[in-house]
Amino acid sequence: MGTALALAERSRGRTAPNPNVGCVIVRDGRVVGRGWTQAGGRPHAEAMALAEAGAKARGATAYATLEPCAHQSPRGPACSDLLIEAGVSRVVVALEDPDIRTAGRGFARIETAGIAVTRGVRADEAKRSMAGFLTRQALGRPHVTLKLATSLDGCIAMPDGSSRWITGPQARAHAHLERSRHEAILVGRGTYDADAPRLDVRLPGLEERRPMRVLLSSTVRDVPGWTVIAAPQDIAPLPNVDHILIEGGAAVASAFLAADLVDRLLLYRAPILIGGGKHSLRDIGLTDLTEAHGRWAIVDARQLGSDRLEVYERERNEA
Amino acid sequence: MGTALALAERSRGRTAPNPNVGCVIVRDGRVVGRGWTQAGGRPHAEAMALAEAGAKARGATAYATLEPCAHQSPRGPACSDLLIEAGVSRVVVALEDPDIRTAGRGFARIETAGIAVTRGVRADEAKRSMAGFLTRQALGRPHVTLKLATSLDGCIAMPDGSSRWITGPQARAHAHLERSRHEAILVGRGTYDADAPRLDVRLPGLEERRPMRVLLSSTVRDVPGWTVIAAPQDIAPLPNVDHILIEGGAAVASAFLAADLVDRLLLYRAPILIGGGKHSLRDIGLTDLTEAHGRWAIVDARQLGSDRLEVYERERNEA
Repeated sequence: MGTALALAERSRGRTAPNPNVGCVIVRDGRVVGRGWTQAGGRPHAEAMALAEAGAKARGATAYATLEPCAHQSPRGPACSDLLIEAGVSRVVVALEDPDIRTAGRGFARIETAGIAVTRGVRADEAKRSMAGFLTRQALGRPHVTLKLATSLDGCIAMPDGSSRWITGPQARAHAHLERSRHEAILVGRGTYDADAPRLDVRLPGLEERRPMRVLLSSTVRDVPGWTVIAAPQDIAPLPNVDHILIEGGAAVASAFLAADLVDRLLLYRAPILIGGGKHSLRDIGLTDLTEAHGRWAIVDARQLGSDRLEVYERERNEA
Repeated sequence: MGTALALAERSRGRTAPNPNVGCVIVRDGRVVGRGWTQAGGRPHAEAMALAEAGAKARGATAYATLEPCAHQSPRGPACSDLLIEAGVSRVVVALEDPDIRTAGRGFARIETAGIAVTRGVRADEAKRSMAGFLTRQALGRPHVTLKLATSLDGCIAMPDGSSRWITGPQARAHAHLERSRHEAILVGRGTYDADAPRLDVRLPGLEERRPMRVLLSSTVRDVPGWTVIAAPQDIAPLPNVDHILIEGGAAVASAFLAADLVDRLLLYRAPILIGGGKHSLRDIGLTDLTEAHGRWAIVDARQLGSDRLEVYERERNEA
């Protein structure tokens, strides 16, 4: 399942409105097929893995991060049928598909065919992996990641606005990798005016990824090459966007936090002190310190050169 | 040597102007004596460990975090003579004593008596352990630790100044333990006026520790129970203070950083966002981002409940 989860990462940010699924076919302890949802949503991970496995899929175990689909589509057959036809002897799945067209029917069809099904394996990681799809299903909006790159004292720039560079090359490369995992990237008017950012993915092999560029502004309307929205809530109807990355600056970040529209926080911190600089946030609507607690849980941390990346997730009851 | 270093921690902040030394006597693989510099500076660690070991010191190995002293004093004999008289067969030391009254003469005296000497064992840790003594010797001032307790976005309080609580009980207990390791604690006028803090050590078994309370203010003069200084540089002549802890607020912290008088940074961070609150620092005299880099190296990090403590040290060429 670990391999299937890793494969699923390859298409995160490219499959909306479909989930990014990973699948591995294992026979006699050897991987005979690997698949991940392709850009645009098809082929599905299982179809790709079964195509690679060919006849070796007979008697094999299929690991998938999401329940195989049960619905026919003009774009391809149902994955549960493909697994049955291929003759796998066991199916191991992380999460049930919340899509009402499947929602347990994939499991039922496979079990009816006499194939053993194991569910719930590494479900928490799969939830994180498919956060965009699951957030869209549950809340009707994209999954929102806020990126902050700060000094130890929480500054994002010098008093004159200069921020090159707070973090080092490894942290900046990681931030570009994160761009490639999002269908859209949003900035505010200040960042747009100051940098006119390209918001592209400057990493070898990922240059073709061009996330939708979104500008949050209540005053401008038409900006060529950009999608302009007037309020944080306007991200909900963006087409084919299940993951959106908020890149800056403080006004935009604070507006999304105040609207409780941030699901994940990427905090890149450099081991420097700036002092009287520009701070990462403004008012986020907090009236009491007790309200601030219990909202954010750290889920990952790593060193990137001399900088440290911490990843936090918003704690929500419905999660 | 690890045990000797741990013993030395017991008296950090209580031995000025003497160093806080740890000593262990080991014979046939068993610890037969343990000592650490006592409050006020005497007895020395070696004298205490040898007293515990008694006749078992003969043929034993003595581990000490600092070179045994070679100077006679009205307050006790030289430790190098005590080790020779006790008949130890080997002496293992972390650091040479920079005090000009010893400075290699302790080693010379022991070796002349035919006892093997090993130097430089875990010297970096010993430097950190005796940072107060070494800073006083090298720079003629106390070792300065700045404590900051912040949210992830670098706030130390809500807009109205309330800061109870940003960090949790484990982080606050650790901050009290740090108080016990300093001869003096300094706050600014704002913190004094807002909290009239006791600055005592509220930990079981350490209640008797009463660090000197220092107020940094250019306007007030006499405050009963407090030592008032007008500028950060005025910490240098404070009597019997080799470790000083800067506790708040932002103006005081920034004044010490601007004067480059902070050697160690204790950063307690709670997993919360505050937004438009009071920030941890003001202008610290930085004119360019490149100046900010290369100053701070992380030397320790630990989780304290839901909070994280990071310890940074100022990188100095003379270190």
